[in-house]
Amino acid sequence: MNAPRAVVLVSGGLDSATALALAREQGFICHALSVDYGQRHHAELEAARRVARAQGAAEHRIMRVDLAGIGGSALTDSAIAVPEEPTTGIPVTYVPARNTLMLCLALGWAEVLGARDLFVGVNVLDSSGYPDCRPEFIAAFEALARLATKAGVEGAAWHVHAPLIRLTKAQIIREGVRLGVDYGPTVSCYQADAEGRACGRCDSCRLRRAGFATAGLTDPTRYQGPSGA
Amino acid sequence: MNAPRAVVLVSGGLDSATALALAREQGFICHALSVDYGQRHHAELEAARRVARAQGAAEHRIMRVDLAGIGGSALTDSAIAVPEEPTTGIPVTYVPARNTLMLCLALGWAEVLGARDLFVGVNVLDSSGYPDCRPEFIAAFEALARLATKAGVEGAAWHVHAPLIRLTKAQIIREGVRLGVDYGPTVSCYQADAEGRACGRCDSCRLRRAGFATAGLTDPTRYQGPSGA
Repeated sequence: MNAPRAVVLVSGGLDSATALALAREQGFICHALSVDYGQRHHAELEAARRVARAQGAAEHRIMRVDLAGIGGSALTDSAIAVPEEPTTGIPVTYVPARNTLMLCLALGWAEVLGARDLFVGVNVLDSSGYPDCRPEFIAAFEALARLATKAGVEGAAWHVHAPLIRLTKAQIIREGVRLGVDYGPTVSCYQADAEGRACGRCDSCRLRRAGFATAGLTDPTRYQGPSGA
Repeated sequence: MNAPRAVVLVSGGLDSATALALAREQGFICHALSVDYGQRHHAELEAARRVARAQGAAEHRIMRVDLAGIGGSALTDSAIAVPEEPTTGIPVTYVPARNTLMLCLALGWAEVLGARDLFVGVNVLDSSGYPDCRPEFIAAFEALARLATKAGVEGAAWHVHAPLIRLTKAQIIREGVRLGVDYGPTVSCYQADAEGRACGRCDSCRLRRAGFATAGLTDPTRYQGPSGA
């Protein structure tokens, strides 16, 4: 019997690199998908390429959707600054409908591949409060997938795996290290430079750095010089 | 009080032109969105531009997503022929996850605009059997929207309007004519030529032609010469 296939969303960050390693551990042949939604720069897509290769993905595709055209987020609109101090509520780095969109592209590709499993590295605990990182969102997308697709109508059960959803950042890192993930080339920073070096100050950098500290592991992140180190 | 805003998916076809007219009749300021998902040609996007202008949309945007990269449909993959005879089951013109994707882009744009209403011209009766044209799909997407968005978390109710969903093609045409829609420039054909002229033979052409006949109205469609007329 052939191993089942899965589409794994790979952003180039720490979480999705771990999700990919977990999907492989579960025996899936992994097709890695990165979505270029008009991020401010491409360092994280380069990191995604390296992660997909290092984790043995069967292939890696990048799909482009121009969310920058609608703006509304610090991650796609250069007129909105990335906060460098903790904020309350849903932060301005929230990208409208981003995870819905990425899962939808994964769903379409999976249907063509004959895969029925999607993996996404969302995480509710250390997630900055994004609505589309919650378990109820994942469950709603899975329900939608059954109704939206030819495969679903024909009786296929879709599974949206979010294996990190209830883990802390430190637990995620320990899982990845157990599976041999090299986090050095991953880019989590919201405002990494062109070489993928992290600012050390944004919300994502703070969560990541604290994760390595709590896990008792050396932080392999490449930072942008002395102020961020 | 200002009129509420809505994002209306406008494909360039007959159904979405009618949905746009109905959204305007309900008092919405309409932002028309067309999605270029790698259709075989651009005649329908040109038609969408004309429809948005003719129906008084406040603006019209085209967002590009390369579904052709994943293939799997006669509408995006030139290796798959568009059927010219009736088929059973879900046809090869089904585009994996297309309506989910288009609604998702509409959702993201609406969130940025402060709109909470989406309009989509899907139709279950004369819909060629696509799964993502059914009322249960629309309901599932509306549920997802509430969970996926910052606006939803903050208490906004999203409404996905599918005003044509239970109408026959003839009823849709009568509604449009009542509201002054000129169907001449609309393109429904799955294999229209570069000038937007219809083949007259594909599933979509057959449904459209029968709709005008049942409505007792002259079919204003421009066909590709004698064989299709």
